[in-house]
Amino acid sequence: MDTSEKISVGIVGASGYGGVQLVRLLLEHPQVEITYLGGKESAGKDFAELYPHFSHRFQRTIEPIDPETIAQQCQVVFLSLPHGLGYKIAPQLLAKGCKVLDLSADYRFRDISTYTATYNVERDDNDTVASAVYGLPELYRESIKTASLIGCPGCYPTASLLAIAPLLKQGLILPETVIIDAKSGTSGGGRKSKVNLLLAEADNSISPYGVAGHRHTPEIEAICTDLAGAEVKVQFTPHLLPMVRGMLTTVYATLRDPGLVRDDLLTIYKALYRSCPFVTILPNGIYPQTKWTAGTNLCYIGVEVDPRTDRVIVMSVIDNLMKGQASQAIQCLNLMFNWEETLGLPQITFYP
Amino acid sequence: MDTSEKISVGIVGASGYGGVQLVRLLLEHPQVEITYLGGKESAGKDFAELYPHFSHRFQRTIEPIDPETIAQQCQVVFLSLPHGLGYKIAPQLLAKGCKVLDLSADYRFRDISTYTATYNVERDDNDTVASAVYGLPELYRESIKTASLIGCPGCYPTASLLAIAPLLKQGLILPETVIIDAKSGTSGGGRKSKVNLLLAEADNSISPYGVAGHRHTPEIEAICTDLAGAEVKVQFTPHLLPMVRGMLTTVYATLRDPGLVRDDLLTIYKALYRSCPFVTILPNGIYPQTKWTAGTNLCYIGVEVDPRTDRVIVMSVIDNLMKGQASQAIQCLNLMFNWEETLGLPQITFYP
Amino acid sequence: MDTSEKISVGIVGASGYGGVQLVRLLLEHPQVEITYLGGKESAGKDFAELYPHFSHRFQRTIEPIDPETIAQQCQVVFLSLPHGLGYKIAPQLLAKGCKVLDLSADYRFRDISTYTATYNVERDDNDTVASAVYGLPELYRESIKTASLIGCPGCYPTASLLAIAPLLKQGLILPETVIIDAKSGTSGGGRKSKVNLLLAEADNSISPYGVAGHRHTPEIEAICTDLAGAEVKVQFTPHLLPMVRGMLTTVYATLRDPGLVRDDLLTIYKALYRSCPFVTILPNGIYPQTKWTAGTNLCYIGVEVDPRTDRVIVMSVIDNLMKGQASQAIQCLNLMFNWEETLGLPQITFYP
Amino acid sequence: MDTSEKISVGIVGASGYGGVQLVRLLLEHPQVEITYLGGKESAGKDFAELYPHFSHRFQRTIEPIDPETIAQQCQVVFLSLPHGLGYKIAPQLLAKGCKVLDLSADYRFRDISTYTATYNVERDDNDTVASAVYGLPELYRESIKTASLIGCPGCYPTASLLAIAPLLKQGLILPETVIIDAKSGTSGGGRKSKVNLLLAEADNSISPYGVAGHRHTPEIEAICTDLAGAEVKVQFTPHLLPMVRGMLTTVYATLRDPGLVRDDLLTIYKALYRSCPFVTILPNGIYPQTKWTAGTNLCYIGVEVDPRTDRVIVMSVIDNLMKGQASQAIQCLNLMFNWEETLGLPQITFYP
Repeated sequence: MDTSEKISVGIVGASGYGGVQLVRLLLEHPQVEITYLGGKESAGKDFAELYPHFSHRFQRTIEPIDPETIAQQCQVVFLSLPHGLGYKIAPQLLAKGCKVLDLSADYRFRDISTYTATYNVERDDNDTVASAVYGLPELYRESIKTASLIGCPGCYPTASLLAIAPLLKQGLILPETVIIDAKSGTSGGGRKSKVNLLLAEADNSISPYGVAGHRHTPEIEAICTDLAGAEVKVQFTPHLLPMVRGMLTTVYATLRDPGLVRDDLLTIYKALYRSCPFVTILPNGIYPQTKWTAGTNLCYIGVEVDPRTDRVIVMSVIDNLMKGQASQAIQCLNLMFNWEETLGLPQITFYP
Repeated sequence: MDTSEKISVGIVGASGYGGVQLVRLLLEHPQVEITYLGGKESAGKDFAELYPHFSHRFQRTIEPIDPETIAQQCQVVFLSLPHGLGYKIAPQLLAKGCKVLDLSADYRFRDISTYTATYNVERDDNDTVASAVYGLPELYRESIKTASLIGCPGCYPTASLLAIAPLLKQGLILPETVIIDAKSGTSGGGRKSKVNLLLAEADNSISPYGVAGHRHTPEIEAICTDLAGAEVKVQFTPHLLPMVRGMLTTVYATLRDPGLVRDDLLTIYKALYRSCPFVTILPNGIYPQTKWTAGTNLCYIGVEVDPRTDRVIVMSVIDNLMKGQASQAIQCLNLMFNWEETLGLPQITFYP
Repeated sequence: MDTSEKISVGIVGASGYGGVQLVRLLLEHPQVEITYLGGKESAGKDFAELYPHFSHRFQRTIEPIDPETIAQQCQVVFLSLPHGLGYKIAPQLLAKGCKVLDLSADYRFRDISTYTATYNVERDDNDTVASAVYGLPELYRESIKTASLIGCPGCYPTASLLAIAPLLKQGLILPETVIIDAKSGTSGGGRKSKVNLLLAEADNSISPYGVAGHRHTPEIEAICTDLAGAEVKVQFTPHLLPMVRGMLTTVYATLRDPGLVRDDLLTIYKALYRSCPFVTILPNGIYPQTKWTAGTNLCYIGVEVDPRTDRVIVMSVIDNLMKGQASQAIQCLNLMFNWEETLGLPQITFYP
Repeated sequence: MDTSEKISVGIVGASGYGGVQLVRLLLEHPQVEITYLGGKESAGKDFAELYPHFSHRFQRTIEPIDPETIAQQCQVVFLSLPHGLGYKIAPQLLAKGCKVLDLSADYRFRDISTYTATYNVERDDNDTVASAVYGLPELYRESIKTASLIGCPGCYPTASLLAIAPLLKQGLILPETVIIDAKSGTSGGGRKSKVNLLLAEADNSISPYGVAGHRHTPEIEAICTDLAGAEVKVQFTPHLLPMVRGMLTTVYATLRDPGLVRDDLLTIYKALYRSCPFVTILPNGIYPQTKWTAGTNLCYIGVEVDPRTDRVIVMSVIDNLMKGQASQAIQCLNLMFNWEETLGLPQITFYP
């Protein structure tokens, strides 16, 4: 395929951690070319000014965010903005024929009232919302292939849903018993200067936050409900860890059939994820480490059953900025253009 | 009180992390004097050779472990050895009039068969075991005061039990719903060279271990059962965190009475721990950070209720080497000698 | 000494890392009582709101900064403010009889023009400046004892000067060959939200900064010149390390007499610091680790001679927030009131 | 190029950190195929048993080290063994027509007596040694292209020599003034369980080691002498940092001509490294961070001149396991086979 056939791609919100992952990945993606970078406060700056380690490979000025201009320059647009901004420009981009992948929460909910209740943003773009597909390829691959607008999942929902989907789809657990204890590196907080994200504060410490009320709970529940075919409420507790990248969810649930053993579940998990190149089910007794996913689009899953308590414990790890954000969006892009699902996506980390 | 009245204290197993905490603390304790350090592989070495930062304050050679000699030199002996060794020398020390605080698992179980099943060590010293008291002052203060032999709790049980005790004592939860998701720094693994504890391996990563089968589970369950007055089984999952010290437990349980709100629980927790100088119940909406406990004997507890799920979430933090090990043993010592409970124990950390 | 005799102490700038160290230390100092906390943006807040781990031990509201009020409430005032603020209130406090310890750069320079050139602040309070003493007790102990105004040293100068002072005082090196390669944890940057101090940015990385132009260079040079009795220029390069606390300086200089060996220098160093309870000269072949100083007022120094190059290499470590800032100020306080120099100051760390 | 044309490659010493980097890189290298993994203690194990994150991509059993077998299976052999082992098998492999890249110190020295003095290994294979080329492509590119045996540089020498080469080649500095203050992450210590490399010990601390006597000094000096055309002695001090990967060298030297300014030096550096795709000279006032190199073969260099002291300060960063070890070896491989120098080598990191 020669360069002239490459798809032109733009990134709105290029200065953040989501943006820099996208730039990094798309630069090495064989089928696309970055033709636009946009930002609000960063407009006018050179990208390599914000990230000097790019200086030898990529020079491009960040432009103001103007949908008209973007649509002229790009066939595909990634929106890497805080929630409440993407829905203001996505419709215009779609109208002009762009495909849009929104990394914020704006298009993750089919039910706009849940979004409004959770993010406290009033809006009435029901039609656009209805056309959006939830960008978790392992669960919604076929819909993604034909979509023009993707609501890319949050990092916690990605890790949680990959861990729990087989249990809910197969009806193996009592839905009201689901507890998700999640742990994340600090990069999830973004490249924003907050005191609690300073190394001096966050290093050598762990703390829970958003207990019983984190915004990702309704997102997880909406998809769980969709998978289970009945309402699911989950207990979700995120924790801030002293590390840069990486996310682990430890999921607990009571088995409907206490006769199930670990091997049964491993078989079920492997079957469900057989055609998923980025999900690896670990063998008996091996539990995942977040480090295995750094800089990749991978998800490793370990499964354990406790016969004493009739519970299943599922542990999943991802890189929160990759499978939890940027590289998963590119996985969706690959599907939308009918390219190899793994195209341009790192499949193995550098260890240690 | 003049120096001649100080209690003579020995530490067996002085070279490990438990040992070095004890030395550090006892050096500044106004009522004791360190008169003996013992070790197996470290015998013959100077303590400051193992820990050069002590060279300006403390010079003492580590001696071989001989109960006869120890009993001559010490009124109190701390045993900071791996499990399966303490019970071989404790009876001799007790017979010669020493008070013994064992930091291993050897005297944590009233039921010797649970110990044997868990630690795979055959023994038949039922009488000594029967005389031992579980060294968690907040729960067994009165018994500790009159004991000669203390089985000091593990770090995970300390953090877990302080979090869950009020719920079990007051019968507030359904006991079969208890899930303890615990997170620990790597110093809990000891000063032993294991590949998985290398900085290169453990840094920037988190992983679960001992899922559905960790040795601390029976210890937690035995005390929970004692507190509840009925058998309690818990789901306990430890995780290894990329940090030196600190332990967080996030405890989930379903409330018996779904009408209880957070304020009710805070009131109950505060009441139960009113006379406990080392336990702080945090106000509404403040969740604990492990960093607050570094180098102290403190435990901070946060409580949350989720009215959507009728669950209580209790979060407790300790320093695993201090309240989870060495300083808690000294807290017991203070009680055994009828000294101020806080004597010689750090009560506030250096932050950050 | 009974409580009524305690000295009343105030801290201006209580919300920062310097402030929180001072509060922590002064709370346990037997001869003082904290009677005032002041701040600008933090005025009106409770101290435990900023640092919840203090809630069980210390409740005090931060007040606005009014010299009149401060002088009424305090016999001693610690100024823990950014440079350029302290010199505006110190004269008033001194005039009303307070003793003042300024942790900023405002009173570190005898020559006001060096301060002005370095910090770009115009001022003409020559008289006050002339009365200030540089608060490095190991070098200026006698002057500190009788001073009313202390200009407390920066963290880098403290570590650098303790390492190099014996060489300059004894004329052992060629002054123009001094190179100080310094490394610091990120807490030196303060509790300010700067992007480069985020854990996500600073963790797992090291970088130099302020190369050939850092503000601490003139401060180091002024004292070196004083010690050597002749002008000294140093090459000073600071580096930001992925850790919370701790500072190491590696100092290189060419020996005037190439016949000197390591043992000669160790003898000289030990002699010079013989009466300094917080400086420890390490034995042959032991090099210092910053971790040994965490939470203490200690400085460990290692000395090496390279006979191949005729250079001496001196390595010093301190806790940048303690000996490099807050606890050193209290060491000065102890001298000013003729108390034991070590009073209330931690002398050994918790390891690891 | 079809698969049958791929070069067959073996890795001896596959279980260590060097080995796992090589496996990771060679798996994605388009011109090679891994046909052999060898190890001593790890023989018989599956590679994915040692590194479970490879399980979805690479299954191969580690074989015993038998030169005969290796030569049958491989056209190219990477030796990733401790020093003193490679030189025992390299001659046999070469004799059978293999190309050999040795990552140990065994073939880094032209003068066998320096090796013997430094590594305390007696040997007399002068002929093989004479045929070896030092594998630093930026300095010895042409010789590497025609070599059959590469002595791959140590990590510290790589970072140091790239920083200092332009100064020595152009005769810009006084050679006797060179001081290299180097800082490394702990992965340089290998996947060996040593107490000082435990996270509990090494985290939140920095310490110097090997002061005035580190083994990499003679290696650096030998190449410096070659570049300068006259004997060069350097002062080299390594430090252990609390991070996994990454290495920074801060190099100090006195300029021969004090009239040189920073821009002059930047021009010289850029010219010298113009055709070097992996070396980036940073613009004025930008200093390198080790994080920029993680998982890549890059070296970033910053240059500063201090007109006050007539010194140049050069700062270079690399990933110690990549440009400092494994990926640099593959860069050599690319040259040896006349492939694109950058083939299969990551050229930009994932940040942060």
